[in-house]
Amino acid sequence: MKDLGARLMAGYDAGYDRNGFSGARLAERLAQVSQIGLTDAGGSYRLGFSAAERAAKDLVIGWLKQLDFTVKVDAAGNCFGRLAGRNGAAPSVMCGSHIDTVPNGGHFDGALGVLLAVEVAEMWRATGFTPESPYEVAIFSDEEGTRFNVGFVGSTAMVGSVDIPALAALEDCDGHSFATAVAETGLVLELFGEARRDAATTSAFVEVHIEQGRVLERENAAVGIVSGIAGLYGLEITVTGVAGHAGTTPMTLRQDALVGAARIVAAISEIAPQCSDTAVATVGQLIVFPGGANVIPGKVRFTVDLRDISQDTLDLLHDRIIARATEIASEAGLDLRCGLTLSVSPTDVDERLKAVQRAALHEMGAPLVEIPSGAGHDAMIIGSQIPVAMFFVRSKGGISHNPAEYSSLDDCAIAAAALSGMLKKLLTGDPARERKSDV
Amino acid sequence: MKDLGARLMAGYDAGYDRNGFSGARLAERLAQVSQIGLTDAGGSYRLGFSAAERAAKDLVIGWLKQLDFTVKVDAAGNCFGRLAGRNGAAPSVMCGSHIDTVPNGGHFDGALGVLLAVEVAEMWRATGFTPESPYEVAIFSDEEGTRFNVGFVGSTAMVGSVDIPALAALEDCDGHSFATAVAETGLVLELFGEARRDAATTSAFVEVHIEQGRVLERENAAVGIVSGIAGLYGLEITVTGVAGHAGTTPMTLRQDALVGAARIVAAISEIAPQCSDTAVATVGQLIVFPGGANVIPGKVRFTVDLRDISQDTLDLLHDRIIARATEIASEAGLDLRCGLTLSVSPTDVDERLKAVQRAALHEMGAPLVEIPSGAGHDAMIIGSQIPVAMFFVRSKGGISHNPAEYSSLDDCAIAAAALSGMLKKLLTGDPARERKSDV
Repeated sequence: MKDLGARLMAGYDAGYDRNGFSGARLAERLAQVSQIGLTDAGGSYRLGFSAAERAAKDLVIGWLKQLDFTVKVDAAGNCFGRLAGRNGAAPSVMCGSHIDTVPNGGHFDGALGVLLAVEVAEMWRATGFTPESPYEVAIFSDEEGTRFNVGFVGSTAMVGSVDIPALAALEDCDGHSFATAVAETGLVLELFGEARRDAATTSAFVEVHIEQGRVLERENAAVGIVSGIAGLYGLEITVTGVAGHAGTTPMTLRQDALVGAARIVAAISEIAPQCSDTAVATVGQLIVFPGGANVIPGKVRFTVDLRDISQDTLDLLHDRIIARATEIASEAGLDLRCGLTLSVSPTDVDERLKAVQRAALHEMGAPLVEIPSGAGHDAMIIGSQIPVAMFFVRSKGGISHNPAEYSSLDDCAIAAAALSGMLKKLLTGDPARERKSDV
Repeated sequence: MKDLGARLMAGYDAGYDRNGFSGARLAERLAQVSQIGLTDAGGSYRLGFSAAERAAKDLVIGWLKQLDFTVKVDAAGNCFGRLAGRNGAAPSVMCGSHIDTVPNGGHFDGALGVLLAVEVAEMWRATGFTPESPYEVAIFSDEEGTRFNVGFVGSTAMVGSVDIPALAALEDCDGHSFATAVAETGLVLELFGEARRDAATTSAFVEVHIEQGRVLERENAAVGIVSGIAGLYGLEITVTGVAGHAGTTPMTLRQDALVGAARIVAAISEIAPQCSDTAVATVGQLIVFPGGANVIPGKVRFTVDLRDISQDTLDLLHDRIIARATEIASEAGLDLRCGLTLSVSPTDVDERLKAVQRAALHEMGAPLVEIPSGAGHDAMIIGSQIPVAMFFVRSKGGISHNPAEYSSLDDCAIAAAALSGMLKKLLTGDPARERKSDV
């Protein structure tokens, strides 16, 4: 048992080991995944399309095969494990998440959703439940998208929305191309289009994910039902001035790209709360060129992440930020270029699936808490074609994308029970099998 | 005539060929020096204590000998050519600079100052002027210090401040020691102490150098008088907040290290001009942790480079920046740590020598422009013992340490006239001959 496993087990109430659920097994698996790309700071470092992400996928595939799942890896590296059920011809119910992380991220974001999708199958085998419809466990590639500043690559490929020329144009901060990076994990960017799946083959997608916020903690609930998923815009802004010697250029003659960028970053943080209570705006990545201590920055490139549950608010936020950034750059004699790297509309979750979630939680006697998701998830991408639902699991302190990210094993056990309860209803002939378009 | 020489001559107004100055000679000599260590990119590559620096010194020594200078090379490789004058027992007036460059640097930084010190002697021979006091041309070793990340080695040795054990501990990026490098040019590191000169033997040191900035270009002046050589503080500031998920943390609950750092960077650029006209402050390096597009920055580390010609102003600038940064961090609930990484005191240029410079420029009808030197020069080191003055020559576009570095031959001719005018006053019995300590 690794450190994380011991910590999880130390706080675990063994009373949750029922209906085939094993706290020890889940803790051990979370710990094993956490060892892949473990950082000195105790975090996970498994970038999308890295050897570490690939190794984590392979580890999970091994567990799926032990459960007699048929496993396929598609052209975008997405892994699908399939349990045929009694009626192999019926549309499948799919469950899963991603297993990549941000640099020095946590051990639960993504990984917990994947491992709970496996754990319910363990529970069913232990209790002798055989699904009527096929059940699929999915691991989507490169959800976080940190390296190339583009996320949800695997789920986007599955729904056939992948923009291969746009991906081909991407470079990481070391100048390596996206195509080179995927090639290093044995994939071919030009073939990503082949990952597209016929939406009719799947009746529902359910994703369990840590909340990454503090609402469930405040509500004293282990698990919540996601009421809707915020849309987001990803921007990349480049401010260009004139590099020069820090000692020989008077302040009045400078076109310092970093001073301009700093004013824009400060302005962005002030604009978001003016647009709505739910709107958020984040500059998470900022790179200074050339980056010498005695050189006036000639260029700064930074990302802007904008989110809201309302499309109108999201557009307002975007427009106000671009207008203000343009104004600041112009006043300082700087050139400003802004590119849209990501655009995702707010996603509705499926009302019928939510009803099934409520029924499952009700049967467990768990409180019914519904919360919006401020984070993007693979379910958001998949929701464009297939009915989706999400459970959130309480996050300690709301901390995420950080080695301190944590959900107790008790909460994970409650999430497993809720997920199993919901999926069993779907897999034995519930209304959610019908197409979203028919609703 | 080499490429550089042809380019210089193509733009030259032959009317400047007067009082013994020869544009063709200076252009030819700049071109010859530029051929030593010429890079594919058209730059100069003459590291300190390299064979190329040695060859460039030998080339200049040849010209000095043709002018009947007595040449000595000291234990640190510094070259001194001496013209005795009528009164060989008097303290000398020294003029010169360095001839080493940064990797792929320009053809004027250093070299122009050395060649103008020679050119004035050519002018005097042609016009029959014989100095009263001895005149010395100096070529200092390893001013740039790129290879071992330590500069001003030759001038430091001349003033007796050389730290031999510290130099002995240096290695370049290939693991070669400083001692080995100097040995390859026939020098012995342990003997560098012998390069110390009695300060009483020299009454003044005058250095001509390219500006490496854009002030003279803006002022439409070929030549400027250096008002002082800036001291500097190097700071490293770390702002720490709380990392978190960009989608799930409301704006009101954030402790975003980058938003705090951005406000500090913007404030720094506003504080500098409030302290003096000459004060400059630069944030050249800024690193965001963890640096994911969808992660609220938990930590930002950045450098601050502060310079001014007055120690009081430098201290004021430093204190105001720290006070404002502390205030901004405190308001945002961020932790702020500040470390001093570099501290160099300003060097005064000699007021009496400046008066002689003004008189020389006034007699030529040239505009009087006084500018601080933000960069360090050999004169900064020598100024600790001997009265020093500097002329700056206009740099095209302010570009330096780059093959595109350029000063027109017209500007070089005006600098030669100014330098000759000033030196003739010093060499025929002007007050600047007195010791700095007597002023």
